[in-house]
Amino acid sequence: MSDRTKKLLGIVLFDDFEALDVFGPVELFGMLDGVVDVRMVAAEREPVKCRQGPTVLADFAFADCPQLDLLLVPGGMGTRSAVDDPSLCAWLAQRARRTDLVMTVCTGSGLLARTGVLDGVRATSNKRAFAWARSQGPNVTWVEHARWVRDGKFATSAGVSAGMDMSLAVIAELFGPDTAERVAGAAEYEWHRNADWDPFAALNGLGTD
Amino acid sequence: MSDRTKKLLGIVLFDDFEALDVFGPVELFGMLDGVVDVRMVAAEREPVKCRQGPTVLADFAFADCPQLDLLLVPGGMGTRSAVDDPSLCAWLAQRARRTDLVMTVCTGSGLLARTGVLDGVRATSNKRAFAWARSQGPNVTWVEHARWVRDGKFATSAGVSAGMDMSLAVIAELFGPDTAERVAGAAEYEWHRNADWDPFAALNGLGTD
Repeated sequence: MSDRTKKLLGIVLFDDFEALDVFGPVELFGMLDGVVDVRMVAAEREPVKCRQGPTVLADFAFADCPQLDLLLVPGGMGTRSAVDDPSLCAWLAQRARRTDLVMTVCTGSGLLARTGVLDGVRATSNKRAFAWARSQGPNVTWVEHARWVRDGKFATSAGVSAGMDMSLAVIAELFGPDTAERVAGAAEYEWHRNADWDPFAALNGLGTD
Repeated sequence: MSDRTKKLLGIVLFDDFEALDVFGPVELFGMLDGVVDVRMVAAEREPVKCRQGPTVLADFAFADCPQLDLLLVPGGMGTRSAVDDPSLCAWLAQRARRTDLVMTVCTGSGLLARTGVLDGVRATSNKRAFAWARSQGPNVTWVEHARWVRDGKFATSAGVSAGMDMSLAVIAELFGPDTAERVAGAAEYEWHRNADWDPFAALNGLGTD
């Protein structure tokens, strides 16, 4: 982390990103009384449409995005074409390497895996699209049964709403468990504190590791 | 409900709306394979900034918004000034009267209460801002202990993430419990099926009703 008192969280947007993968973490990090500045980053500083309909404005283009303290890569159907976008993948790889804490939600881990930066890292992904994520990064140590996985500077979560539990775990790590508790309470969210809680793995025929 | 096969859900945006109040329901209704068309509505067809930072584009202005099947009013700090916006309140009152199913999340119930359309209706709200919501609608039958309340054509939820449980309850009602189960599973969301589940009421000194 940098020494700045305010941390800059950049969330990458691409066409057909999954709404809650982005806005679950936005809600929780955005509740920290301005301690984390939550910004959207995309190829251009233009509107980006999520899979569920609404359109969100990018605050920064890839080319003008300042140094980030935290980077988050969402999932969604859009990851299937994003992995074939060389400029997106190049930006992700470069930024992931120089950012202190990198988070993914859902199939965002598959997208990040495709860039190679997750090679040798323990990571998880969406439980209904696990085979796809795995195929993007054969050298990643994929963990089938996990709500989220924390390894080195990476925090990767399972599908969609799992990003909220991962966000609270990261908030607890950076700002203390009391702060995470306060944020969860303010959002009236029953958060899962245990990274091993994952009923969705077995539901989708995945192992218990 | 109209006879159209596709239902139109309009979500009202105003400055400083709460991100997850909007995007929790967006995620779940937006997952219904296009059966619900999720659109953002604001005073003008312009960008609106949420409390947590990101900016969302309105798809319709109040003046050109078509007839809705479902209306959702989010909460957030922006409701405190929204209640003093006569054109917003007039639009809300008129639309709430002619929409078959009207939902609120968090302090959105306080905003809607201010228009008078919740008079005599059982409703709930955010548990940390309950006194404020109550003050906006002295003739509403406020329910302190509830994750959400369903009364007539209104579905009102408690704070922030409670909007996701209310959305799933409405999806179960409109499209069947199996559909709601499928959506919750795809979002890897552990939904609370019981509207009386509410640990946040007591945490905030509210009664058990």
